[in-house]
Amino acid sequence: MLRTHTCGELNINHVNQHVTLSGWVQKSRDLGGMTFIDLRDFYGITQLAFNMETNDQLCEKARTLGREYVIQISGKVIERENKNPNIPTGEIEILVEELTILNTSKTPPFTIEDETDGGEELRMKYRYLDLRRNPLKKNLRLRHQVSHAVRSYLDELGFTEVETPYLIKSTPEGARDFVVPSRMHPGEFYALPQSPQTFKQLLMVAGYDRYYQIVKCFRDEDLRADRQPEFTQIDCEMSFITQEDILDVFGGMVKHLFKTVKGIELDEIPLLPYSEAMRLYGSDKPDTRFDMTFVELNDVAQGKGFKVFDSVELIVGINAKGCANYSRKQLDALTDFVKRPQVGANGLVYVKYNEDGTFKSSVDKFFTQEDLQQWADKMQAQPGDLLLVLAGEKDKTRKQLNELRLEMGTRLGLRNPNEYKVLWVTDFPLLEWDEDTNRWYAMHHPFTAPKPEDIEKLNTHKGEVRANAYDLVINGVEIGGGSIRIHDRTLQEKMFEVLGFSKEEAEKQFGFLMGAFEYGAPPHGGIAFGFDRLCAVLAGSDSIRDFIAFPKNNAGRDMMIDAPDTISQEQLDELGLMLKK
Amino acid sequence: MLRTHTCGELNINHVNQHVTLSGWVQKSRDLGGMTFIDLRDFYGITQLAFNMETNDQLCEKARTLGREYVIQISGKVIERENKNPNIPTGEIEILVEELTILNTSKTPPFTIEDETDGGEELRMKYRYLDLRRNPLKKNLRLRHQVSHAVRSYLDELGFTEVETPYLIKSTPEGARDFVVPSRMHPGEFYALPQSPQTFKQLLMVAGYDRYYQIVKCFRDEDLRADRQPEFTQIDCEMSFITQEDILDVFGGMVKHLFKTVKGIELDEIPLLPYSEAMRLYGSDKPDTRFDMTFVELNDVAQGKGFKVFDSVELIVGINAKGCANYSRKQLDALTDFVKRPQVGANGLVYVKYNEDGTFKSSVDKFFTQEDLQQWADKMQAQPGDLLLVLAGEKDKTRKQLNELRLEMGTRLGLRNPNEYKVLWVTDFPLLEWDEDTNRWYAMHHPFTAPKPEDIEKLNTHKGEVRANAYDLVINGVEIGGGSIRIHDRTLQEKMFEVLGFSKEEAEKQFGFLMGAFEYGAPPHGGIAFGFDRLCAVLAGSDSIRDFIAFPKNNAGRDMMIDAPDTISQEQLDELGLMLKK
Repeated sequence: MLRTHTCGELNINHVNQHVTLSGWVQKSRDLGGMTFIDLRDFYGITQLAFNMETNDQLCEKARTLGREYVIQISGKVIERENKNPNIPTGEIEILVEELTILNTSKTPPFTIEDETDGGEELRMKYRYLDLRRNPLKKNLRLRHQVSHAVRSYLDELGFTEVETPYLIKSTPEGARDFVVPSRMHPGEFYALPQSPQTFKQLLMVAGYDRYYQIVKCFRDEDLRADRQPEFTQIDCEMSFITQEDILDVFGGMVKHLFKTVKGIELDEIPLLPYSEAMRLYGSDKPDTRFDMTFVELNDVAQGKGFKVFDSVELIVGINAKGCANYSRKQLDALTDFVKRPQVGANGLVYVKYNEDGTFKSSVDKFFTQEDLQQWADKMQAQPGDLLLVLAGEKDKTRKQLNELRLEMGTRLGLRNPNEYKVLWVTDFPLLEWDEDTNRWYAMHHPFTAPKPEDIEKLNTHKGEVRANAYDLVINGVEIGGGSIRIHDRTLQEKMFEVLGFSKEEAEKQFGFLMGAFEYGAPPHGGIAFGFDRLCAVLAGSDSIRDFIAFPKNNAGRDMMIDAPDTISQEQLDELGLMLKK
Repeated sequence: MLRTHTCGELNINHVNQHVTLSGWVQKSRDLGGMTFIDLRDFYGITQLAFNMETNDQLCEKARTLGREYVIQISGKVIERENKNPNIPTGEIEILVEELTILNTSKTPPFTIEDETDGGEELRMKYRYLDLRRNPLKKNLRLRHQVSHAVRSYLDELGFTEVETPYLIKSTPEGARDFVVPSRMHPGEFYALPQSPQTFKQLLMVAGYDRYYQIVKCFRDEDLRADRQPEFTQIDCEMSFITQEDILDVFGGMVKHLFKTVKGIELDEIPLLPYSEAMRLYGSDKPDTRFDMTFVELNDVAQGKGFKVFDSVELIVGINAKGCANYSRKQLDALTDFVKRPQVGANGLVYVKYNEDGTFKSSVDKFFTQEDLQQWADKMQAQPGDLLLVLAGEKDKTRKQLNELRLEMGTRLGLRNPNEYKVLWVTDFPLLEWDEDTNRWYAMHHPFTAPKPEDIEKLNTHKGEVRANAYDLVINGVEIGGGSIRIHDRTLQEKMFEVLGFSKEEAEKQFGFLMGAFEYGAPPHGGIAFGFDRLCAVLAGSDSIRDFIAFPKNNAGRDMMIDAPDTISQEQLDELGLMLKK
């Protein structure tokens, strides 16, 4: 080893020891008689002292060192005069006796500090320098700890980690696949897995009972902010279980993670049926760090002559506690917010419940004080509160009010990144209708089982069929999702039929799975967690990119290695491919 | 849970408990008054008893169950009359009171037993059934245990697991890449990594100090037996270390694996320089479970008038102890063996050291008994031994004799699969000359550092430059390999120049890495282990395929899901690709 200790471990107990350290020059201070250097490695920072009086040559040499030079030093641990209580090594420094330059460094294009002056593009190009910064180091160590804690928990419960293949088959259901041309079978392609879904089900058919894997998955989608073409899943499946068992085991896992990684004891994780989530929050991933639940006002707000309300499917509001004093300008801003194309409401009705008990609203023309009192009562409002009300088609209006609720939560500081609210959303619909393509889609995926009591409705009321499907939501972010699966060939065939597959298509794409169901498939179900996002949420961050060592930008490019890139004509020829001009 | 216990855990202490089990019907025995069923799950087998007298309906139902049916039963644990000492549950059985059929099964196309009647092709097509067999279950559990033990060991030493990207850039050096067409950047391609080599080096530049990852890698090569297009590596890298540190840490890891997984305490792992390995075994991955090392005979066998010997570069033999009694037929078989095209020798010289102290050889015409006594002395032969000698060009002859040595080891039963001999082969040449392409190739890869004392020879005696490179060899199989890396831009540029890269090519392909070396790259090195093969060797098996859940066949096909496969015209269009007719 080119060191006896790391830069993070020496303290007052090591005084007088002779040590060797290696690391990077973080910064250098020349004080005339002395030169001090902060030496950094993965584990911390240790101060080096060079004395002009006792060793001028060495001190001169130290003064030639630039930022990010890699050096090795030997010297004696001594107690510092000016102690730094903020770092573990702050009580000591090294009086350097020997100095070797292991490598030089050009001046980095941005500062290697907690807060850097480098822009996003530059930092992605020099990712190896950005990764030197403390916040990213902490993120990647956190990621390591989370994966460690996940494995410990699941290993303890007898799960077997099994690797599933990356070179599989393209299936049109779901998102777009990345494909891999086969050289040995020209004209044929592998696909990279969007998830190991079918393989983990086959492992259940194979009797593996409890499977998990922390695994890369791939989706060739147009990238929205903070989506990555390759991402990591914690992928799990169990046999001979019910939904309740899955929620127990993986609720337990999440609690274990919070405890071991964050030192937080979570309460029992509550369950919220999808229909309730939509009714109360207008979202299947509600942020429950704050209340402000929806209150439906149809019965008190309709039939009073306000045409906008009278004909609509839903009138629904939230109570912004203590906001009755909002100014005209603030209210206009909220109206503008809901009218933005991303939200899409036509307008916003407000009712101020003044401190003096009177009401002031944007619909005073149509509603009496008594009418508004009724609203206030339904919404459990008190003087000082502000009621915000939207109206329109049910699903759309709920979505709009969800946006407004989150906005108000943010404005009122109710979304504390250091507070964690976890819940299960359950009983998802099995199918959703798509207006554009005029067909039913699986809300989770085609392998999700309908609730046994709803199977009959697959023929008659498809939209009402509920699934044994569940999502884990933390602070309004969907972290995981899963379901009890179909394990019966006939039901699986029925499902493909409902989704508009012909018998031939279903057989070509998923014949292997349906075939497997004929050889003793056990009841099974599972879940997958978005590992990148789980890490981000645990760190109270919005950005998954900061938790991935080498992420791609929004155009799917690796800025550092400059990929994707052209390949040689020889490679194309070998693959039997031509580029379209 | 659809069970209170697994099929592997009930024993005499559970007698009289009422339990529920779920699993597969392994086999059924109808004895008239009683029916017995072996119920199997991932954890074991439990015998179920159905009594015709006390519950004829249930017993009749049990008699309808076919092999591999999935059932759930409830009943009472009772002590067996005929105990089976071979299984943990052998002292008890369940007197069944309730029986539910969870799923039926067609008759499997082969038997689900330790020894099956299914051929390889059939078992790959129905992999989910093959995986039900005990030997495969044991293999995949072993794999899980090995990965667990690897992680524990490295976590303990402060290594950070970091995931590196799968969508990277194609580079022509090394094996052929699998490529992934980019839809967002038509005409451009990602490549799947052959290893995370450059990324782990960048992590060292980024200061991550100790990295590991258990990671899939990809090579589009023509598949030899037991090669897979996707395979798993234990990939590791460390900073501020010397070769000795790497051998310590990862020798320690291998010892840890043997201890925790096999219960075997390995001795200190010996080091063997490459040149010695070639001299003594004719191989850089010698099987050291048996001796039979090479003895060079030039000084005693040349100049005696045997022309075949007199002009050759090397005469070299092995001593097959106790084989002097080999028959004409046996000796002819050995001659045939070395003359096979795969071995390629012109002939084989033998010398029998008879029990009576005389010699009988295939070259008696040219060598006296005294001459042959000299050979025998050099080879430490005793009466009863058989000397086998090859001659020719040095490197080729060594390779041929290596094959013969391994063959003799096998014939003499010296290659016990339950014995383990581990060693490090060190000091590999940096470069090897390729006759076909008339250029130098990196023996490990272009990032391997030459030994500092040999750098000068890069200009003058390229073939003599040794690298700080090392392989871990177990029982004649290369399990891991690595090196100290170049961390200096100038030396890396020199290396690419020696390998015939133009400045522009080197910059285009590896500019990001050489650029990183200019910003304070620390001295670093690492190693990668073939995880599939490591598992196979630990289990004393030759076949990596039996340690991969869903392997591909020798044509790179997944027989079960039938991949690769054609993709739709729409997919091709989106990717801007056309197929060559």
